[in-house]
Amino acid sequence: MSLLKRLISVVAPIAGRIPFTRRLASEYFIDKSGNATSPRPRPFSMAADYTSWESLTDRRFTGRHLPPPKAADQPARPAVEEVLKLFSRQGAGRQAVDTSVLFSAFAQWFTDSFLRTDRSEPRDFRKNTSNHEIDLCEIYGLDAHRTRMLRSMKGGRLRSQLLKDGRGVEGEFPEFLYERVGDQFAIRAAFRNAELGDLHDAALLARVFDGWTDAQKAAVFAVGLEHGNSVIGNTVLNSLFLREHNRIAGELAKTNPDWLTAPDGGDERLFQTARNVLTVLLLKLVVEEYIVHISPIEFPLEMVPFVADGKKWNKSNWIAIEFSLLYRWHSLVPDVISDGQRSLKPAEFLGNNALVISEGIDSLLGLLARAPAGRIGLHNTPVFLEKVEARTLKLMRDADLASYNAYRKAFGLSRLTSFAQLSDDPAVVQELTRLYGTIDKLEWYVGIFAERYDAKSMMGDLMLTMVAYDAFTQALTNPLLARNVYGKDTFSAKGLEIIDNTHRLQDLVNRNCAKPPKVSFEFPKARAG
Amino acid sequence: MSLLKRLISVVAPIAGRIPFTRRLASEYFIDKSGNATSPRPRPFSMAADYTSWESLTDRRFTGRHLPPPKAADQPARPAVEEVLKLFSRQGAGRQAVDTSVLFSAFAQWFTDSFLRTDRSEPRDFRKNTSNHEIDLCEIYGLDAHRTRMLRSMKGGRLRSQLLKDGRGVEGEFPEFLYERVGDQFAIRAAFRNAELGDLHDAALLARVFDGWTDAQKAAVFAVGLEHGNSVIGNTVLNSLFLREHNRIAGELAKTNPDWLTAPDGGDERLFQTARNVLTVLLLKLVVEEYIVHISPIEFPLEMVPFVADGKKWNKSNWIAIEFSLLYRWHSLVPDVISDGQRSLKPAEFLGNNALVISEGIDSLLGLLARAPAGRIGLHNTPVFLEKVEARTLKLMRDADLASYNAYRKAFGLSRLTSFAQLSDDPAVVQELTRLYGTIDKLEWYVGIFAERYDAKSMMGDLMLTMVAYDAFTQALTNPLLARNVYGKDTFSAKGLEIIDNTHRLQDLVNRNCAKPPKVSFEFPKARAG
Repeated sequence: MSLLKRLISVVAPIAGRIPFTRRLASEYFIDKSGNATSPRPRPFSMAADYTSWESLTDRRFTGRHLPPPKAADQPARPAVEEVLKLFSRQGAGRQAVDTSVLFSAFAQWFTDSFLRTDRSEPRDFRKNTSNHEIDLCEIYGLDAHRTRMLRSMKGGRLRSQLLKDGRGVEGEFPEFLYERVGDQFAIRAAFRNAELGDLHDAALLARVFDGWTDAQKAAVFAVGLEHGNSVIGNTVLNSLFLREHNRIAGELAKTNPDWLTAPDGGDERLFQTARNVLTVLLLKLVVEEYIVHISPIEFPLEMVPFVADGKKWNKSNWIAIEFSLLYRWHSLVPDVISDGQRSLKPAEFLGNNALVISEGIDSLLGLLARAPAGRIGLHNTPVFLEKVEARTLKLMRDADLASYNAYRKAFGLSRLTSFAQLSDDPAVVQELTRLYGTIDKLEWYVGIFAERYDAKSMMGDLMLTMVAYDAFTQALTNPLLARNVYGKDTFSAKGLEIIDNTHRLQDLVNRNCAKPPKVSFEFPKARAG
Repeated sequence: MSLLKRLISVVAPIAGRIPFTRRLASEYFIDKSGNATSPRPRPFSMAADYTSWESLTDRRFTGRHLPPPKAADQPARPAVEEVLKLFSRQGAGRQAVDTSVLFSAFAQWFTDSFLRTDRSEPRDFRKNTSNHEIDLCEIYGLDAHRTRMLRSMKGGRLRSQLLKDGRGVEGEFPEFLYERVGDQFAIRAAFRNAELGDLHDAALLARVFDGWTDAQKAAVFAVGLEHGNSVIGNTVLNSLFLREHNRIAGELAKTNPDWLTAPDGGDERLFQTARNVLTVLLLKLVVEEYIVHISPIEFPLEMVPFVADGKKWNKSNWIAIEFSLLYRWHSLVPDVISDGQRSLKPAEFLGNNALVISEGIDSLLGLLARAPAGRIGLHNTPVFLEKVEARTLKLMRDADLASYNAYRKAFGLSRLTSFAQLSDDPAVVQELTRLYGTIDKLEWYVGIFAERYDAKSMMGDLMLTMVAYDAFTQALTNPLLARNVYGKDTFSAKGLEIIDNTHRLQDLVNRNCAKPPKVSFEFPKARAG
């Protein structure tokens, strides 16, 4: 395995330059990741600890990769408070080697769309409200009814408004969610529907915006998800993708005049096609830029259409509890977002759409790309996220998961026999020994954050293997990438051209920002601390 | 192709006797059928005549194999009344060569569970209410809430009652749906739920039981589907499968004493496991008895677990409008169900649970198995089903389908160039020529019923290819047959034993009838008219 890795690292840069071998190597790498563990469907979901028709078919219950251990096999585990201490950031924390805050913002924005623990009351930690697809619900909402609320119903466009930034330059943003009625804020009529449901669940929204000032609420945008306004990263990316949607709709209208003769002036077809094109753009960025950044191998991975054809792992998506937990990269978030010139504290980057409006997304995208993220690992969760980390640990315990070594085995990795094999940090080895005794008793969630990794990587072996498995087997099974679907008939010639000409987030930024900043998930290593 | 067929017909009987070659040949035949056309997902559903996220993901819209032709390419077609005349039974009709009425009863009962056109108001012919899975909703209801209504919540059993037949012999049946309140019938409390919904939609039920007498209503059983009481075949099969469910639950309770220590006495696990076992029994009967009967090749096809592993056609199920239409084998239904001794007219076999109760399912299963079905084809729809046939033709026209030859091409068959290639019947050739002019204009739905077939078959080439494709690619993708699921952990040792020991409907009859009759889908050829 290690030899193979070294071989790949030599061959990869050469193979990456030749289209044929690039495609071949991409397919190999994707297929290898997809076969890391056995394919879905799994016999268990969170519905029960035995197999039922419900556990096999009702995706409102979150999936799980491994069944809970038998009660007798689940070792005594340290108190959650003790585990939390393992995650708390020490001092100023550790900085990532080459990852920008834009990466962490993208990760949060992207994963919020499919990692959706059900938060309705009464809480049932076993359930989720995910569509289990990459469907850009961040800007399109969770179902067809809500999508309709977010559309202008003209020209295939999403509802939007032009707002002036501090320098008087206009930028396109989603519409506001609230309107002021007397001294209260009320959801605007467009986003309410007594029969089919409001854009968001009212009780959930009340909790999300609990404690927000009037000024904060006044600037909340109507977007697809409840948490879409929680951090500036979400708002910047929602605005960028909304702009690209409306831009694509305009391009499609110009190039498909026959669509415009429909009774609705072509709105429906333009909307649906623009959405499909934009969703494929997102899938491309995820594979070709986001996953490439995560990967330890320097290789220009390609989103190969039809790559899932006839693959064992090409099965219906089902978000697993482990995927939902392992993606909680709180340690990526710095205490302060700073490019050395300008700094934003949590109070400034949380719930602050006013900042996005006044600075414009151009300026903030640039700042996020120039600021270093934190390093994924133990002792690096920022103080302001400790409550969230504590909730995560609670969920992890409720889910009654198998051990770190059990997951290594399930994902084709060798069992570790000592904490020294896991971590290079003597302090961590000592702490884990004190808390768990032997590595066979180590909890999976602690283990994946304790894993060592080298300077080319941003996470350890098991987390990488599990992320790659779930990402590839659920992103590349997207119906838009299927052989019968991906092509000119679905996207139109113009749509396919846009897909073919998009490879990086930079492309979207260049098309939709007045003064496009340089953006990358990579933070220049030269400057890394 | 024809050579291959002949070769297979020689080799098949030998190969069928050897377990290894039987399994191999089964896998070959299944895979060949699964690759008859390109795999799901399809770019279109009934949602729109272009590809949208909704058309790719919202299975409430019925799927479609081929998109509608461009308006200019859709030829002028004869009036629906003219087409209906092609289907009307002539005289006493034609009898099937070797198919019993039990086969047609099973076909109706089985397909009612997944071919479910949405009949709620306002009607939208594009929609369905199918779960798109073989899930035995005939006895378990359409979702978890309704399943719960049908359970006794003790010992994993379904609600049932013992009723005496005319000779005083007790038999197990579902509970009654209605109770008499004054001079009205009201749904019993167990099957009502104001918040989550009644067992069945009230408006739909009112239409199903429109015109039923008090005596008919008093005998309606509480089963999974609205049409579960419509014909004696449905009631007989519902009762048989309910008995087998409760029998299996009892067997599982005896063999898994540790389950009984759960707070619910084991009810939940017993129920879920019995359901999973029974669902696999159904899948086995469908492949090993029902499809074998349909198949023109004499071969003991085997339900090979994991056969869908890594196959291109192993994709999420989605019932297509063509599947829903081609399965309307009205011509299988005879004017009179008769074994030469005893005869039942439509008024006796429609909506007549009282007969099932008084005769017992043993006696009626025997009668159905001894009575010959009608022959699938044109001019053989019984008079009492002409209204239903007219609705089918209306739906076929609404769906705006491609031509017979277009479907032949899509399913890998050669284009026909004349009506004489289609049918041996000069009268039919003449009629079709008069109505359509050339075969390229022939409607698909008419074509599949006009196709010639030999004495070993029960339908023509295209219908057989399409049935086999949709049946195999949607039955064998059942999650219960997946590699990670099928086995002792899911079914328990006893459950797996029951599965291994079940091959024919006769096995279920022997286990659950006081005086088990001989049952078969095959009507003895010697007696066929």
